[in-house]
Amino acid sequence: MTWINGQFQAPLPVSDRGLAYGDGIFETLACINQKLHLWSRHWQRLQQGAKQLALEVPEQQTLLNWIEQALAEKNNPSLAVVKIIITRGSGGRGYKSPEQPQSRTIITIHPWPEHNDNDYQQGISALVCRTCLALQPSLAGIKHLNRLEQVLAAQELSANNCREGLMLECTFAENDKPAKKIVTEGISSNLFFVSRGQLFTPEIIYSGVSGTIRSELLERAKALGIPLATGRYEMQEVLNADEVFFTNSIFGILPVSKIIYQQGQKSRLYQQRDISMQLAKSLNPELQRPCQFITL
Amino acid sequence: MTWINGQFQAPLPVSDRGLAYGDGIFETLACINQKLHLWSRHWQRLQQGAKQLALEVPEQQTLLNWIEQALAEKNNPSLAVVKIIITRGSGGRGYKSPEQPQSRTIITIHPWPEHNDNDYQQGISALVCRTCLALQPSLAGIKHLNRLEQVLAAQELSANNCREGLMLECTFAENDKPAKKIVTEGISSNLFFVSRGQLFTPEIIYSGVSGTIRSELLERAKALGIPLATGRYEMQEVLNADEVFFTNSIFGILPVSKIIYQQGQKSRLYQQRDISMQLAKSLNPELQRPCQFITL
Repeated sequence: MTWINGQFQAPLPVSDRGLAYGDGIFETLACINQKLHLWSRHWQRLQQGAKQLALEVPEQQTLLNWIEQALAEKNNPSLAVVKIIITRGSGGRGYKSPEQPQSRTIITIHPWPEHNDNDYQQGISALVCRTCLALQPSLAGIKHLNRLEQVLAAQELSANNCREGLMLECTFAENDKPAKKIVTEGISSNLFFVSRGQLFTPEIIYSGVSGTIRSELLERAKALGIPLATGRYEMQEVLNADEVFFTNSIFGILPVSKIIYQQGQKSRLYQQRDISMQLAKSLNPELQRPCQFITL
Repeated sequence: MTWINGQFQAPLPVSDRGLAYGDGIFETLACINQKLHLWSRHWQRLQQGAKQLALEVPEQQTLLNWIEQALAEKNNPSLAVVKIIITRGSGGRGYKSPEQPQSRTIITIHPWPEHNDNDYQQGISALVCRTCLALQPSLAGIKHLNRLEQVLAAQELSANNCREGLMLECTFAENDKPAKKIVTEGISSNLFFVSRGQLFTPEIIYSGVSGTIRSELLERAKALGIPLATGRYEMQEVLNADEVFFTNSIFGILPVSKIIYQQGQKSRLYQQRDISMQLAKSLNPELQRPCQFITL
């Protein structure tokens, strides 16, 4: 069931620039007991995206009203995924926006995905993907609709029986010096790793999405007194780490038990869960999620 | 008027992955006297795009039938723009494609844009854009739906009263050495320049779209005995050139009279038209276009 600018089952014109050019942004939120989890962080990122793309977004209260009516039409499920897409609306042929673009807000409500308790208890396998992330500071951080890199990377997972993939920056060898393999994030998540008690997460400056759970955990780690650093890290540092986990707004914190690298030829196992458990417990109380030792 | 998989005014589901992720490809063709200009080159690029994205595309004859019926519904205009979008079709939330994706082909017919004879006779002004092209070999060459870079670059044109923009590769200074400014293409076109009688065009390997007119001209230049090179060229080489022109499938060959660079602070004028005229005349006879000394 689709709501466009607050209208139920409104048709989507094929002239929409979201379709033509990916000219827009989106958010995927958890709705738990009729509460939008980390709404203010999602709203903040929407505004940041709108600013970077010079895109008009609705007023916050208008958007919340539209989400509320979409949830009500679904009888206010206790757990649901809310997806918001805001595009620049319809525009002629050509990259140039119309003079007065009328942005279009599309809201869909999706069932809560089945969470596999094992994934949280045992951890998941992750593949170091061949598909790389191009360096584009103008688009880094925001959740825009140009996601072909993620689509291509996700195609690599099935053959390796992995739930998530690690994405490296695109690099090009110069002067016969092999390029550094810098890791940025998961395909649909942010990456954290722990080495000798310190928590690390790649900075999101040249590529990647600045995740809402990532931002939340950066604050919580600080409050919990967990030493934390952000920066540009090589893949080898993750392979040398004691503990690795992914975060996103729907699965929360997902520990990694295995990383498969060198085109599926090698793998590294991880057993430590100390920091991810500590952070998950910090998120848990307010969330009252059914999953064992998880986050949202 | 929209045709989706050969059905007239079929609705576009918001679950389409073209909207969600830009998961698809497109083509924009000139239709002149009921003939699709350079069809085989457009079809070839569609197939290349489908291969790079692992996307199903319809059979060539099916696609041609769909275009034919869309044109017939418009009473077969003597000049029209045909736009084809092929997406991976509907898919759930998440970057991973459905097991059996059903691709969706959207065909729209647009009026032929008003061509300004002056643009062809006097040449156009072009801006060197601040928005750069990220280096992504997995997506270079094909005409995919992830076009935010072009949308952002096009936003820069109005303030500088330019019709087209030049896009450079994204580069990052290393070891305090300023990065080279490598030029790739126009926002919606390919770039050619002439220096001392030799024709140059940037190679399309790390970014950019491999244009159909570009491919056609590479062959024609060879046949006409015009010395030609492709490679990675610095912006300065274009600023030092004798003649500069853009090519795309709708405006054909458009000469450049002025390039504005250094954030609008400097400009260079161009008067020479020798090679672009020669190439335009080579394209012209078969096309019988009304515009003075132009291509298609």
